[in-house]
Parts: sequence; structure tokens; C-alpha cells
Amino acid sequence: MNNRKIPVGILGATGSVGQKFIELLSNHPWFEITELAASERSAGKKYKDAANWFSSSPLPDSVAGLLIKNCEPNLNCKIVFSGLDSDIAGEIEQTFAKAGYIVVSNSKNHRMDKDVPLLVPEINGEHLNLIKYQKYNGGCIVTNPNCSTIGLVLALKPLLDSFGIETVNVVTMQALSGAGYPGVSSLDTIDNVIPFISGEEEKMQTEPLKILGDLNSGEVKFNDIKISAQCNRVSVVDGHTECVQVKLKKKTSTKDIIETWKNFKSEPQRLNLPLAPVNPIYYFDEPKYPQPRIHRNLDKGMAVSVGRLREDSLFDYKFVVLSHNTIRGAAGGAILCAELMKAKGYLD
Amino acid sequence: MNNRKIPVGILGATGSVGQKFIELLSNHPWFEITELAASERSAGKKYKDAANWFSSSPLPDSVAGLLIKNCEPNLNCKIVFSGLDSDIAGEIEQTFAKAGYIVVSNSKNHRMDKDVPLLVPEINGEHLNLIKYQKYNGGCIVTNPNCSTIGLVLALKPLLDSFGIETVNVVTMQALSGAGYPGVSSLDTIDNVIPFISGEEEKMQTEPLKILGDLNSGEVKFNDIKISAQCNRVSVVDGHTECVQVKLKKKTSTKDIIETWKNFKSEPQRLNLPLAPVNPIYYFDEPKYPQPRIHRNLDKGMAVSVGRLREDSLFDYKFVVLSHNTIRGAAGGAILCAELMKAKGYLD
Amino acid sequence: MNNRKIPVGILGATGSVGQKFIELLSNHPWFEITELAASERSAGKKYKDAANWFSSSPLPDSVAGLLIKNCEPNLNCKIVFSGLDSDIAGEIEQTFAKAGYIVVSNSKNHRMDKDVPLLVPEINGEHLNLIKYQKYNGGCIVTNPNCSTIGLVLALKPLLDSFGIETVNVVTMQALSGAGYPGVSSLDTIDNVIPFISGEEEKMQTEPLKILGDLNSGEVKFNDIKISAQCNRVSVVDGHTECVQVKLKKKTSTKDIIETWKNFKSEPQRLNLPLAPVNPIYYFDEPKYPQPRIHRNLDKGMAVSVGRLREDSLFDYKFVVLSHNTIRGAAGGAILCAELMKAKGYLD
Amino acid sequence: MNNRKIPVGILGATGSVGQKFIELLSNHPWFEITELAASERSAGKKYKDAANWFSSSPLPDSVAGLLIKNCEPNLNCKIVFSGLDSDIAGEIEQTFAKAGYIVVSNSKNHRMDKDVPLLVPEINGEHLNLIKYQKYNGGCIVTNPNCSTIGLVLALKPLLDSFGIETVNVVTMQALSGAGYPGVSSLDTIDNVIPFISGEEEKMQTEPLKILGDLNSGEVKFNDIKISAQCNRVSVVDGHTECVQVKLKKKTSTKDIIETWKNFKSEPQRLNLPLAPVNPIYYFDEPKYPQPRIHRNLDKGMAVSVGRLREDSLFDYKFVVLSHNTIRGAAGGAILCAELMKAKGYLD
Repeated sequence: MNNRKIPVGILGATGSVGQKFIELLSNHPWFEITELAASERSAGKKYKDAANWFSSSPLPDSVAGLLIKNCEPNLNCKIVFSGLDSDIAGEIEQTFAKAGYIVVSNSKNHRMDKDVPLLVPEINGEHLNLIKYQKYNGGCIVTNPNCSTIGLVLALKPLLDSFGIETVNVVTMQALSGAGYPGVSSLDTIDNVIPFISGEEEKMQTEPLKILGDLNSGEVKFNDIKISAQCNRVSVVDGHTECVQVKLKKKTSTKDIIETWKNFKSEPQRLNLPLAPVNPIYYFDEPKYPQPRIHRNLDKGMAVSVGRLREDSLFDYKFVVLSHNTIRGAAGGAILCAELMKAKGYLD
Repeated sequence: MNNRKIPVGILGATGSVGQKFIELLSNHPWFEITELAASERSAGKKYKDAANWFSSSPLPDSVAGLLIKNCEPNLNCKIVFSGLDSDIAGEIEQTFAKAGYIVVSNSKNHRMDKDVPLLVPEINGEHLNLIKYQKYNGGCIVTNPNCSTIGLVLALKPLLDSFGIETVNVVTMQALSGAGYPGVSSLDTIDNVIPFISGEEEKMQTEPLKILGDLNSGEVKFNDIKISAQCNRVSVVDGHTECVQVKLKKKTSTKDIIETWKNFKSEPQRLNLPLAPVNPIYYFDEPKYPQPRIHRNLDKGMAVSVGRLREDSLFDYKFVVLSHNTIRGAAGGAILCAELMKAKGYLD
Repeated sequence: MNNRKIPVGILGATGSVGQKFIELLSNHPWFEITELAASERSAGKKYKDAANWFSSSPLPDSVAGLLIKNCEPNLNCKIVFSGLDSDIAGEIEQTFAKAGYIVVSNSKNHRMDKDVPLLVPEINGEHLNLIKYQKYNGGCIVTNPNCSTIGLVLALKPLLDSFGIETVNVVTMQALSGAGYPGVSSLDTIDNVIPFISGEEEKMQTEPLKILGDLNSGEVKFNDIKISAQCNRVSVVDGHTECVQVKLKKKTSTKDIIETWKNFKSEPQRLNLPLAPVNPIYYFDEPKYPQPRIHRNLDKGMAVSVGRLREDSLFDYKFVVLSHNTIRGAAGGAILCAELMKAKGYLD
Repeated sequence: MNNRKIPVGILGATGSVGQKFIELLSNHPWFEITELAASERSAGKKYKDAANWFSSSPLPDSVAGLLIKNCEPNLNCKIVFSGLDSDIAGEIEQTFAKAGYIVVSNSKNHRMDKDVPLLVPEINGEHLNLIKYQKYNGGCIVTNPNCSTIGLVLALKPLLDSFGIETVNVVTMQALSGAGYPGVSSLDTIDNVIPFISGEEEKMQTEPLKILGDLNSGEVKFNDIKISAQCNRVSVVDGHTECVQVKLKKKTSTKDIIETWKNFKSEPQRLNLPLAPVNPIYYFDEPKYPQPRIHRNLDKGMAVSVGRLREDSLFDYKFVVLSHNTIRGAAGGAILCAELMKAKGYLD
């Protein structure tokens, strides 16, 4: 019995995040896709007929013939991964949690709820304790941060632990896939930069404070780092590049910071979770690196690439961070959350 | 006699900056291209045979048949515009100045020379006084700043005058044409960002201090603003986009700052110089603006577009600046310098 | 009174073709925009508030404040230019024609109607005679061909006249703007080619036969050239590039064909129509030309660029054709139709 | 002893084809890279120091520390894969063959030599018999076709066998990586198409005739298909897209042609060669497919994707072919040649 895979469902299965969930779960050693749910428009059709599959990995045969259901809590699975649009995700996810499902969501709706973990498994696995304060009967909601937040907090975490952080300044150059499909018009991105992404700067300025906060008698005490974010859309398929500046609490050196990044390992690595990167952070010495097209898929697309660490005249240090926005920053990150939950007994 | 145009020559005429000089000077009311000079390889050939003309404006007939000469000071003209590569520009430009030519250079070599104006006509026209300290017999050297510097200092100047500036933080997303032709490989820029441009950050951190400095008994006292710059190359043909943060000396409001930008006019506007933009700065209220493909050619490509002014938690304000890197930021900016010199009697 | 401009209206004024009409008509010597009409959603708003203006030419002040009306035949103008979507254009255009308006349409709906000219002013101006067979009281409908058809037929016309044409084979690489706004998703075009454009090949295979047909006692006798078309979408903003092969009826030489193209002038040139290109066709000897980014704006975007003429082993000759799809291929072409109508007395 | 891998060397190891050889050979079950050779400039350095590694697969550790040697026939290996530039490949490859090496070359120099196989393992494996007519002592030269030829001939082969082919017309939209690194300037490809690739059309018109020719008493009798090719460069990283038209000798139907493609298997599949695709040809029913970004990596990048088969008015049928130009079309194709040689005993 032990080698039976855990049945999982995907809410919003035809969307771009839903497709990435399917791609990453299709050969997963622990989880098996048994249910796909989407909007009325798709419900009742075979997945291959309803979805405009656009990944370069072929649509898995085991999924192609599955019938899409409505997003109602009568799915035959234990976990649901949610890639729902935020205009409907909030309520549907609650309905599933109340019906006893474990909801792992990539949507923003419940991220800042007091009793909902905003989880990055290498950073704040202990926030899973919040679940016991949730008012759902056996079900629960766990969330994944925004795609531009994840790379940033992973690069910050080792610095926070070793040197303390006072302020963070970040300017992003974000990939097109972050806007979903069809998302951004080609006429807006060819030979162009869009210096605005609605709601994105606010998320980058608040989510890290919860993720990097301390759990204290059932509450997350938000970190008091001051963060300023500026977000831009550039002509890149996948991979968010971020120019980061930090002011630290303790004096250190570029050499020590690089060591700290290279040595960083955490629970997912120790537990050898299937989708955990071997190293959460890779540092590159070549000044022209990291670059999205070259490094986004590093370590299954789950690692963060960092480079160009140098001293800064206004902060202490500046550097460049790159991470895959639809793998580490969305579906892959959410699956890693579920893997951590299983390894820590939350699925028993 | 008064309506005779002033004969001008172009050094490095076949390169990308040289071509832009030709394009912008071809119907100039005051200047007339009489001489083209380039490397040995091109010298002796007709321009149309030697140059790989890649502008979308057709090569002007008056220039197509001109014979390219060597970069030696026997050209029949009064002014030479230099678009030479920096590995040879330094010496050649001095040779021309010594021979009595007025050299207006887009190369970096003499920008930081004590007696050489680093000129942005809307900002520091009085720096032209430095010329009289130059040791050339009748000739002189005047320089134009780096392409990424110009947009920044034009946006800063009205703030400096009205509110004072303590610190400036800037992250750029720079166009491909800034690297010349052939410049950057297409394989490095399609679906990619390069988070490094050699030497660029240093220029952005030092050039503004000279440009915004005060002329005092024959010397420029550098401004003491503290600047930090991070420079990236993105997949855009023309137009550098910059995310800027400033800490001001006086309290103000976004409304007042926008007014200050909109009202900014300076000597080139008052003198009605041919290539002067009607307004040096345009402010856009739409949060998605400015964008390089839409706004780079505004007001003949000589204006700076600004948008997204908002308060910042780490500095006082943040905003986005866009300017055309090969027009305002190179050839057009240099021609405006020469126009200012003429209007102020430096060419008499 | 003679110098009063003719009042014109634009149907579908907020769409991408509508915007191009506004841009090209804003300083027109003969026409003046007095009316803008669009869908219910926009009607009643000022143009600047309703339209997402995305041209790099600033929105003309004279248009920004105009109130948008419904697409109903109570507009105060003589001509309406239609950039309506084809799902509604058919009926609305007829309603306007019946109400006495001169409708110049860029939509496909009435192009193949027996009594409607499918007009390219350099080619088949005499087809305007069809108007008298139209059953509208004083009003009429004149249409402009598909954007990929125009470049092709302009390049073919001189060959047809001089040598006769048996067969034409064409493979296109079409610009993004041809699909309107938002049109094609950026995720479908970055680092990609889409080898399919719905309905496009059929238009290219039939429209030229009507355009190049002879008017005979009130009917167009379609030309019997056999045409095969394959249409692709590539990552280009504006400008359709077409690889063309032709089998001619008479023997000739590349030299003679080039001469024929270079010498081609027609009615719009002789009548000196405002938007007529000086030369309808430019031939380039450099084998790497024409290219969309370099040549699309040639002669106000109204000329066709041709290059690479060479012998072919399967047909007689092959060559490359480039034309601006939203200027010559849409709004500009339609305006030229109206100009020809005025010059020939159809507006009196 | 049997499980010892065969030692192989790479000529031109630092170039773009050389890098692809390293990537594809780094975990090969039969071959092991023991030698890297390149120009004087790189010789003597460790590979990781000499090469500008730009693949998104990390540089294999086993190769990073290898010392680069000169391209002289004292390498410790049995096979050399050549990715040399054509201006030097011809002589060096002969020198190696004379010294007893098996040379598998991706360069064009010896492709049309009478006694040299121009090999596509699924098509003309029997051409390896030509080797015995080569005048080298134990060594030999085998070549791989041009990157744009391979996709075409693979799609044609089943049609030739089943229906016979009279004429082929092909228009390509080729990827940037086909020009090597740095290759094409970003300024030539962003928002652009280049309708010319030097020498490419000639190769596409002649190479298929040899590949599809019959071996007859030690000579290849060229096929007499008439081919016309037009080649364009578009803004795509990897993957050549080709619009193909064919005139067949026998009547057939789209259904039968699709069956013929789907059923096509050949020697590499039967021999289960490591790099052989499971199916050489995949046919897609969706009219928008194949697309380079989605399908180029299908079946390890070794398969050809075909779609849009439909009747044609000038030929019999038209369709779209896509193949990965640096895998199937270069390094991968050459390795498959070596695999076939091993399986057929040519390496014993």
C-alpha cells in the first residue's frame, strides 16, 4: 500500500499555471494527477480538447484523455493545486478547504490571511504550524508567494540569517509568462519595455515580510525590513531578473556573502524532496551572468541564480538575482510546498 | 554671406554614431557636411560604397558620393563631430584641436579632462567657459556625455534646482543600438537580458557630478550627489529606460515635481536652437508610460519622457525616465552642443 | 470656399486601423476628421479617454477631445473610412452607403461584391466605374484589399503589363500589427514563427484576380493567373515580407524587369495625390534587402520595396517584396482610394 | 573490454557546433570525449577558460578541465567530429583522414566529393559504401548535410519512396543559431527579417540530390528532382521552419501522405541507435503547428515536425516542416552518422 501515489487534482487546469502543474506532476514519484477542474466552459470535455496546450513538453498521455470537471468539492483526490484566477480563487479554495481538501494555491487571495502559511520550503517550513489555527475541518489552505517574490526572498534568506538586513531595494525585469496566456500583446513587448505591472510592486514589498517573519504563538510576526520595489516587463519568455541592493546589519565582505549563498541548504535539501534543487542558490563569477535564457532551467528550474555581487555606495551591496517564474515562482514552488507537507506528516 | 552654412566634418563617419550624425545633419539649417573621415580601410572610397548604411532614413544623396578621407587634420571644415571608437579617439581629437578645429566629441576619452566641457546644453552651457583654458591654438574640444547619463541628468536638473538632491539610485534597461553595430549578438538578446554593460555604471556614477557641477574660477566643482547605478541590456532597438530613485534636500510633493518638470525650459529653448526640443521633459500620467517604442522619437528624439512618479519608502521619490540613446544620447546631443556654441559666438 | 476641407468620419475609430486613419488624416490637405464612431462601449466618451492610443506619433490635439459617436448614419461628414471588425462591418457599411455616405472600407466584407471596386489606385482606378451599378442612393462602397495582397499586386502589375503572368507562388512572413491590437500573444511570437494565419491564404489567392481583372460592360472579368499562397506570422512590428515566384508569358531578363519596376508610375503619381508615393516600387540591388525594419516607411510607408530578383528553376523568376501593412496595406491605401475618388470627381 | 567507450575528439571544440557536440556527447553510451582541439588561440588552455560556453546545459565537469590541443593528427582518439569553419576545415579534415582517423564532419567542404558520403542515417545509410573508394589509409571522411537540408530531405524521403517526386519548392525561415556565435547582429534581427543567407539556397538545391541519389557501382547517381529554394533569417533561437511544395509522380491523398510520414521508420530506429528519434517524423493536425519554440526539441531534438499538409494549385501538395538546426541539423545529425557507422561495423 505504501507505494500508492497520492491522488491530486488541479483547479484551473487549462490555464498557464494549470498546464505547468500538469507538466511538473506528470512523472512525480509521490503524486498522481487524478482530477482536473476548470471553468464551466471546459467542464465535460476531455483535457486535450479543452486546453490550448502550449508547453514544449508534449501533453502527457495519462492526462490528455481525462475529463475536466467543475471546480466543485467532489473531486476524487486528497490535495488540490490551485492555479485559479484571483477573481474566483478566494471562494473556491475556501469551499475545498471546508470540504476537507488540502489546498495548495498559487493565487494571491489567501496569502496574507493570518492563519495561512505563505510558504517557501527552504525558508519558513515552520509556518506550516499555522494550519492548526485554520477553521476548516481537516482541510487547509497553504499558499505560494508571487513569482517575483520567491527569487528575492531565497537570495535574501542566507543574508538575513548571517548578517541581518535593514533595507532592500529591488528593480525587476520580468518575463512574459508571468502574465499568463494570452497575457501581454506582442505589440507591447517587441522592441519595448513596459515599466509597470499592476499590483506587483505592492506584493514584492509586503510578501517577503511575512515569509521572513517569525512564528510566535500561532502568529507570524512580520519582519521589519524596509523594501522598495519597481517592476518592469521585458521581452523574455521565462525567468525574472532582479537588480537588488541591500543594507545589512553586520559588516561583512563579498567573499563571505558568496560563501553564505553557496553553502545555503535547508529542509527540502535535507529531506531530499523530489523537486528540491540540489542547491537553492548558485553564484556566478562571470559579470555577464546570470541571464534568463541560460540559467532559468538550472537544477530543474527550481534554483535561484545570483551574480554580480559588489559593494554599493548607497546601500552596502548590490547583486543580480534570477529565477524561473513559472517553475520555482509558481507551479514548481507550490509542488515543493506539498512535498514538504508530506515529508512532515501533514498529509497523513 | 550670412546665409552660408558652416562646413562640418564627421570623424568615424561609417560607424553607427557617424551614420546618425549624417542623418541628423543632412538638412541642418546651419551646418553642412563637407567632409567625412574614417579608418584607413574606408578612406579613398565613396561613402555609399564604404558604409553599411542601416538607418531607415535613406542615405542622403549629398553624402552618398562624398569621398571618405583619413582622420587627419587637413579637412576642409571648421567643426568636426567625432563618433570615433574610444581606443583611437583620444589622440585624433587632440590632433584636430591643435590644428585649430572645433571638436565636438561623443567619445569618452576627454570627458573628464579638467578643461573640457562635458556639455548638456539645457544644463551647463556656462561650462563652455572652460574652453578658454584649453591649450589648443584656436581649436578646442567639447564633449557629450554617455548615452545613459543624458536622460538621467536632464530629469534630475529641475529637481536639483528646485529641491536639491542628496542621493540618486538608477537601474537601466538599455537599448541594443547603444553597443554600436554589429554590437551585441542576436543570440545574447533574444528571449534574454544581459545584466552587465562594461564601464557603463562607472560613467553614470561620475559624469553627472561634473555636468551638474558649478563652474568656479575656471574649474568645475563636482556636485556631491551620491549616485549608484546598475546597467542592463534588453531587447530594444533604441531608447534607454531608467528606474530612478531620489532623496531630495527639501520637502515637496509629486504635484510640484511634475510641475517643475513640465515647466523646465532652458537656453536651447530660449535661443530656439534648431535641434532643441520644444520641451526638454514630457511627463506622462498613464502608469504604463513611458515606453521606448512609443516615446523615444518624441520631439525629434531630443526630449526626455518621464512617468510613474510616486513616493518611495527608501528614498523620497521614484520614477521612470526614457530617452533616445543615439539621438539625444549621442549624435543629436552633440549637434545641440555645436548649435549652442554657434548661438553663443564660439564659432565666430 | 474652395479651400474648405472635406469632412470625414472614421468607423471603428478606437481600433488599430482606426488609429492609423487618425494618424494619417490628421494633417491631410484635403480631408478633415469631423466625426469618430465606435462601439457602444466607447460611444459618448472623449476619444482620448476611450482609445488606448499606441502609435508613436502623439494623438493629435484636434482629435483628442472629439466625442465618439455610435456607428449610425447621422454623422456630419461626407466620407466614412471604415476600420470595423469584419463581424459587424458588412451591415454597418451598407447602412451608411444607403444613407448617402461614401464608404471607403478596409474590411473584407464587401471586397468581392460584384459592384464594389476592390481598389489599388495605381492598378485599377477604372474599376471605380462599378460604383454606378451600386444600388445606394448617392452613397457607395469602395474597398481596399487585404494587407498582404497589396504589396504583391503592386509588384506584379508592371510585370503583367509588360510580360504577362501565368502563375504566381508566394510565401509571406507577416507582421504582428496585421492582427490588430492586442492581436497575437507575445508568448506565441517571441523566439517563434506561426505558420498559419486564418483566412489569409484564401484572400491572397483570390483578391489579386479581381484587382488585376478587366472592367468589361459593368463587370470585372477576373484575371486567370494561378496563385498559390502560404502565410506565416513572424516577430516584426510592421511590414510584410513576401517571397514571390512568377512564370511569365513572354521571355525577358532580370535587367528588363528591374527597369519595368523602376519606371512604373500610374494615375496617383500623375495626379500628384497627397499620399501617393513618388515611386510605387523601389528596387534594391543589395542581396540582403529589402528588410521590414529598414524599408517599411519608405516614401511615407506607401511604396513597395523589391529586391533579390533572380532566375528560378521551377518558375521563371523569384524575388522579395516588402510593404507596410498598416499604411500601404490598410489605412494609407484606403485614404489613397479616397484621394483618387476626389481627383476623379467622385466626391463632387 | 567490450564496455569500454570509443574515444572521440572534437575539432573546433570552442565554436557553436563544437559546444553542441560536447553537450550531446557528454553522457553518450558509446562515445567518450577524450580530446578537444581548436585554433592556436585556444590551444594550451583548459576548455572552461578558452570557451565562451553559452548553452543552457551546464558545461560537463568531465570536459571543463580538458586541455585544448591544436588541430593536428596526434589526438588520442579514433573518431573526430569536426565543427571547423569551412575556410580551414577542408585541409585539416583530410590530414586527419590520411592519418587514419574517422572524420565525421559538419562542414561543407567535402560534402560534394565523389567518394564522400553525405549522410542522413534514415535515408542513405548504404552510401557509407563510398568509404571504401576513399584514398585514405584506414581513415575516412563522412559528412552531414547543411542544417536547412536535413529537415527537408527527411520529410521528402517517405514521399519519394511511396509516390515519387518531380519538383520541390521550399522557402525557409531559419533560426539565428544557424549563423554561429556571435553570428547575426541583434540590430539586424529584432523587429526584422533578413531575406538572404549567403550560399544557403545553393546548398538546399544541390545537397538533397546527392542524399536522395542511388549508389551504383561506387558512385552516387544524383536524383533528378528539380528544387528551388529561398532562404530567410528570422528572429528565432533554434529551429528552421520551411514552407514546402511538392509535385509527385503518382496520384495520392493527404490521408495517405500523412500515414506514410507517421509510419516512416528506418535503419537508425531498427538498430535502436542512441540518438535516433523514436519517430523521424511527427505530423500535427492543428493548423497552427509546427512551431519552432514548441516543437524543436521533440524526441531529443532529432525528429522532424510536419504540419499543414494541403492540396496546392501550382504543385500537388504544400506543407510545413520544422527541425532543430543545431541538433538534428548539425551536431546531433553527425553523431547519429557515427552511431550508424559503429552499428554497421565501420569502427571495428
